[in-house]
This record gives sequence, structure tokens and C-alpha cells, in this order.
Amino acid sequence: MQISEERLRSDIEKNASFGAIEHEGHGRTALAGTPPNGSARDYFVERLEDAGLDVKVDAVGNIVGRWVPKTADPNADAVAAGSHLDSVREGGMFDGPLGVYAALESVRAFQDEGVAVERPVEVVCFTEEEGQRFGSLLGSSVASGQTSVEDALAHTDDEGVTLAEGLETIGYAGDGRVNAEEWDAYLELHIEQGRRLESAGVPIGIVTGITGITQATVNIQGEANHAGTTSMTHRTDALAAASEFILDIERAANHTVEAESESAVGTVGREIVSPNSTNVIPGEVTLGVDIRDIESDSIANIVRDAKKSLERLEDERGVSTSYVTDLDINPVPMSDRCQDAMRQATEEMKLDAPKLPSGAGHDPMRIASVTDVGMLFARSKDGISHNPMEWTSWSDCATATRVLGESIANLASN
Amino acid sequence: MQISEERLRSDIEKNASFGAIEHEGHGRTALAGTPPNGSARDYFVERLEDAGLDVKVDAVGNIVGRWVPKTADPNADAVAAGSHLDSVREGGMFDGPLGVYAALESVRAFQDEGVAVERPVEVVCFTEEEGQRFGSLLGSSVASGQTSVEDALAHTDDEGVTLAEGLETIGYAGDGRVNAEEWDAYLELHIEQGRRLESAGVPIGIVTGITGITQATVNIQGEANHAGTTSMTHRTDALAAASEFILDIERAANHTVEAESESAVGTVGREIVSPNSTNVIPGEVTLGVDIRDIESDSIANIVRDAKKSLERLEDERGVSTSYVTDLDINPVPMSDRCQDAMRQATEEMKLDAPKLPSGAGHDPMRIASVTDVGMLFARSKDGISHNPMEWTSWSDCATATRVLGESIANLASN
Repeated sequence: MQISEERLRSDIEKNASFGAIEHEGHGRTALAGTPPNGSARDYFVERLEDAGLDVKVDAVGNIVGRWVPKTADPNADAVAAGSHLDSVREGGMFDGPLGVYAALESVRAFQDEGVAVERPVEVVCFTEEEGQRFGSLLGSSVASGQTSVEDALAHTDDEGVTLAEGLETIGYAGDGRVNAEEWDAYLELHIEQGRRLESAGVPIGIVTGITGITQATVNIQGEANHAGTTSMTHRTDALAAASEFILDIERAANHTVEAESESAVGTVGREIVSPNSTNVIPGEVTLGVDIRDIESDSIANIVRDAKKSLERLEDERGVSTSYVTDLDINPVPMSDRCQDAMRQATEEMKLDAPKLPSGAGHDPMRIASVTDVGMLFARSKDGISHNPMEWTSWSDCATATRVLGESIANLASN
Repeated sequence: MQISEERLRSDIEKNASFGAIEHEGHGRTALAGTPPNGSARDYFVERLEDAGLDVKVDAVGNIVGRWVPKTADPNADAVAAGSHLDSVREGGMFDGPLGVYAALESVRAFQDEGVAVERPVEVVCFTEEEGQRFGSLLGSSVASGQTSVEDALAHTDDEGVTLAEGLETIGYAGDGRVNAEEWDAYLELHIEQGRRLESAGVPIGIVTGITGITQATVNIQGEANHAGTTSMTHRTDALAAASEFILDIERAANHTVEAESESAVGTVGREIVSPNSTNVIPGEVTLGVDIRDIESDSIANIVRDAKKSLERLEDERGVSTSYVTDLDINPVPMSDRCQDAMRQATEEMKLDAPKLPSGAGHDPMRIASVTDVGMLFARSKDGISHNPMEWTSWSDCATATRVLGESIANLASN
């Protein structure tokens, strides 16, 4: 199957012009339901129509272009593929658009070469994946039935504008609901947003699952006191206790990587110290903890170690502590059938495609609750994403798109 | 020697009414050169005059009340004692005023009982000890010749008001300069601002010296990255490195306490994490380090251990670090002669008066450069200071004042 790198690049570059910002690299700000997002959608719908696809926009703005070639049974469940066109503030050009235009380019390649698929193929753009205005994974939550159309439309941004109003403004308040349950499978190509593929020196990887995540707020109370007049033996230093906790989290994650699951990660990314003055012993520290893995057992083990650490600090240092879970999402495995279809494609192309987990959340997390899903990652330069410096070479984009196309063909021919 | 607890209490309570704030306890805000400080000075000058002392106000507002009884040689160097009347914002009623009024009460007790001192006695109020408007220890820096009158008067507050203007406003821009070099000795009674005396169950302690202090800003640079997509083996976590450093400082201080000098303290009181988001591995951490002791060797050893820790973290964790010294003040020992005079007083009174260092800076730090100085600490409830809850019982105030008076008498009779 022949992918047109030029056609793919032209679409992604044109898409990047909507909401483009002045910055080194290729930055854009195209939040869901804003005019740049509207222009990007208009261009996408034109491209779908140019390729002869039937376009449908649902009530929450999800766009689907449906292709039913003569070889396909129009009543068979479709194989769907896509991603999203909304960006974060000052984001990059590939996160989302690569997956949308790779799906469309796959269909155009099928058309060019007369690939005889037996199922309809649908090219999908989900609304508001990033969640920078109305909440993340919103379009896919509706398509998978986890959020109702009414609830989604009532989500508001910081100014109190609803998703319904945002979509109305840009002309993408459609009808009905894209129902992912009707899909035979859903595939998505996305940039990796990490360095594993770059480190491995390969352009593409097959995602085994989207990691589960638990986030917690940990509070440690000691006693604020004069740093000069309070002897070492009379202090209850909340920051020293917090420092032990941070290293305990790191140790627990490293131990889990060695013993159980190499994809496990544990991070303390946020720390607020009070009163935070050089000459005062810290009286209170609040920490933001983030633990993820593809295996829920690993997450549970690190959480258990975190709580043990706090108990120990209470005993040994006399601090008071609390651990409040803010977020708790289970790991979402990708379907074996979809991984097999992608593995078959890479083997035929003689590509080394390592298996890897996705540490970030994506629309397939939602879609996996109603049909088989698979994800491909394309190599990211320096692992940078959500940043104008985000970069995947055009040749990697083309290679990854060809793997996506072959995988869709594999699934659509069964 | 008989101290009037009632007279002492009346003066300190009256002083606390100037700038009094609504708060549990006894709060006041009487920053140097503000109207509440002016009223407190007016009341103090009246009290000095009531006791028959000659009052002098110098160009930077330092106030001295001089008493030359018939038994004294008017040409002999005076024994001086006092403290300050300015407060921090929302400070307590004892920090400063106790020392000022205890010195005056000592003279009144000498007068009541006809104590035959052979040297003049001077009761001193230094300008701007706290440094909340124009810079700390300002009056005593001028009295000891470390800062010129002109330089001190040109110091400005946050609104650009000079000390000269502040003093003019409250009517305390006097003439000349109190010259501490002309004093035979200077004694100061101050609240402890720590818990050592409370822990020891005694009302008073003899200060061995004012601790030296070094403060530094430590910067640790790692690499900010996605907490979900960056594996444990690919991270350079600035916060984990900073946590090791914080524990290394604590360990070095504890080791110094055990091996060399029990008064040594090492604190990281300030920590700024960037970007400080739960789902991002910290890329940069800035720390404020505070190290103090009465022994300069101990300070040097902890600083050396801190720098070794940073070198180790660069090697082991791949972070970049910097250590910038912001403040470096040598320890100031109190004179043996003054400590002996105080020891003799407490022994005669059959008081157990432990030796202890002062972890906070005080005017005697400056005066020690030109004459013999001694300090007494009175027990502080819960070690609280710079706070409306600051408290020393009236009976402790009276006991401490009697020790001060006996010590002045011991020095003034030689």
C-alpha cells in the first residue's frame, strides 16, 4: 500500500495554520469550539468530501466520514480510525491531527490502490480530547455512552460558556450521537509523547494499553518554628518529613519497575511549603502525587508503600499526615485482536515495532468500554509534546500511517 | 535588691498599648519611626525623666537616659543596659520593651535602696532593631560605628520614606551619636524566643554568644517531563534530588550536634518547585538554606557537607546545581567579664541559670565590636515570639530584671 507523504504533510501543515502562534517550532492554539478549531474542522470536512466520504456531525460535534466501497457490506460494523483536532494552549502540530489525517490518508490510499475492504471504514474526529475548555475526552465519552449528550453540552469553560454554545458559534452543533458500539474496532495513531521509541531507534510502536492513574494530595503537618532558636532535637520539620516521603515514592516505583512491571511510574510533581521562609522551619507541606501503570496491581502496591511511608513518618518524626485520593482511573488494555492486526502489518512491512504502554490518556480509553480498540505510537523527537517544539519527521508520519492503513485493511477484511 | 514587679509590669503594659492590635494575646505593631513608636518613645522619655535621668536623643533616634549617683565617678565609663521599643508587624509585647524597662527598673531599684554604684549607669533604647522598615540593628550599628549616621538616615522603607523622615515625623531626630565605645560594658535582657529555658524549667539563662549564620540559595536543575510517559529510568527529577539534599542538611546538622556543638542548626525553610504540577516531573527546585551555630567551625563543616551533597547529586542523578551564599555573619561571643558578673548575680540569688546561645540576632551583636557585652534570656512560653501570643510571666520578668540589676551593680562597682 502506497501512502502519499506529500498529501499527508500538506493536510497536517494546513491544519497547523489554524490558530498558529509565533514561536520557534510549529505552535498552535486551537481549543475546542473556538474559531481556529472551527476552521480546522471546515478544512477537514472538505477533505473528507473531496475523498467522497459521507460526513456526519453529531450533537457534541464529533465528525465522522464514512466510506463504503463496493467490496464492503454496508450493513457490516465499520472499522473506525481517527483522533482529535483540538489542541492545548500553545500546543504542537501533531498531537491529534496526525491520527485524524493518517486515517483519512489510509482511506485515500485504499481508493488509489483499490484495496478490497469488506467493511465500511469511518474516519473520526472526536470533540475536545484535550479538555482545556470543557473537560477531557468529552467527545469519546459521549460516543461510548459514558457521558450523555445533554451532560456534555452543559459543560462550561472558565467564562461560563457551554460546549453547546461553543459548537453553535463554529457551526458544529449537529444531530444524534456517533455510537462507537456500532464499530467493529477503533484504531488510533498518535505521537508517543515520550522517548521510548526514540531511544529504541524505531519509528513506531504498538500500544499494549493505556496506563491507569491515581493522583493524591498528601498533607504533612509539622511545627513552624524559628530556624535559629529551635534546636535540632526540638523540631518537627514538615519539609524534612516530606523529603523522606518523596524519596520513598521514588524508591517504591523503582522497586516495582525492577520486580513487577517496567512501565510503573511514581512522581511527586507538586510541593507547597508553608510558611516557606528560609529562616523558619517548615510547618506544613502539601504534595501532589501521581502514580501510573498498565498493571493495576503495581499501582496498588505503590499506593500501599506511600501510605506505609506516611505511617512511619508519623511514628518517627511526630508529624500528622493525610492522603486524599483525587483521581483513580483503572488501566485500559488494548484489544488483542487489534494488536494482532497491527503486529501483522508491521511484520509484513519488516518493521521492528516494540510494544509499549501509553502513559497519557487518549480517546481509546473511553472507546475501549464498547468495542475493540488499538493504538499505534509514532516516534516523538526528544519526547516533547504539548509544546510548539513537538516534532515527528514526515517520513515517520508516513511510515506510521502506512502501518495504520494496513492494520485497518487487516481488520476490515475479516 | 528589690524589684517592683508592679512598676515594671505597668510600664510594659502601657508600652504595649501603643500600636496595640486586635488579636488573642497582646499584639502590637510599632514599626520604627511610625506614630505608635513615637508614642512609646514619648512615654519612655517621661519615665526616664521621672526617675531623674538625663535624656539624650542622637541623630538616628537612639535614646539614652544617664544616671550619675553621688557614689559614681562622672568621668568613669558608664555601664549601659537596654534594648529596643520598635516591634515587628503584629509582634508581641516583650520583645525589646522587657530589656528597656528592666534596665530602667534596675536604676529605680538602685535609687530606692541606695545601691552605691561607682560608675554612671545608662538606660538605652536603640532605633530599629527589628529591621521591618529601614534595616535591622540600625541604631546599634551607628552606636558601634559600623554604620555612619548619614548612611543610616538615608535608609528607606518600601514606600521610599527615609529613616531621617520617619524620625522627623515622630520628633526623634536628635543630635550627635551615642558612642558605645565609651561604655564600660553593655548588658541586655531579652526574651529567649526558644524553648530551652522552658524545657529546663528555669526562668533565666546566661547567653554565651550570638550564633553566626550563613544563608544560601541552592538551585537544582533537572528535566521537566510528563509524569506519565517518562519511565523511571529516563528521568532527572529535580525534586527527588532536592529531597536528598534537604535530608543531607538535616543529617549534617544532627551529626554536628552529636559530635561537636549541640547548638548547631541546619534548616531548609524555603522550597520553590517548577513547574509544580502534579503530572509533571519537577524540572527545577530552588531552596533557601539557613545554618547557624555559636562555633564558626561547626557552620563551616555543615556548609562543606552541603556542598559535598550537591556534588554527589550531580554525579548520581545528573542534575546541575548551584550554591550561592546570601548572608554570612560570624558568631559573636559574649564577654567573659559580663558573663561572670551575671553568674555572680544568679549564684547570689541561688538561681540555676544555664548557659545558652542566642540563635537570633540582637543589638549586642553590633555593640560587641566596641565594648564588653552580656545578654540574659528570660523564659518564653512555648518559645513563641514575633507573635501576639509571645508571653513571659510577670514573675519571670521580675526575676530576670533583678538578675540584670544585680549584674549592672556588679559591673558598676568595679
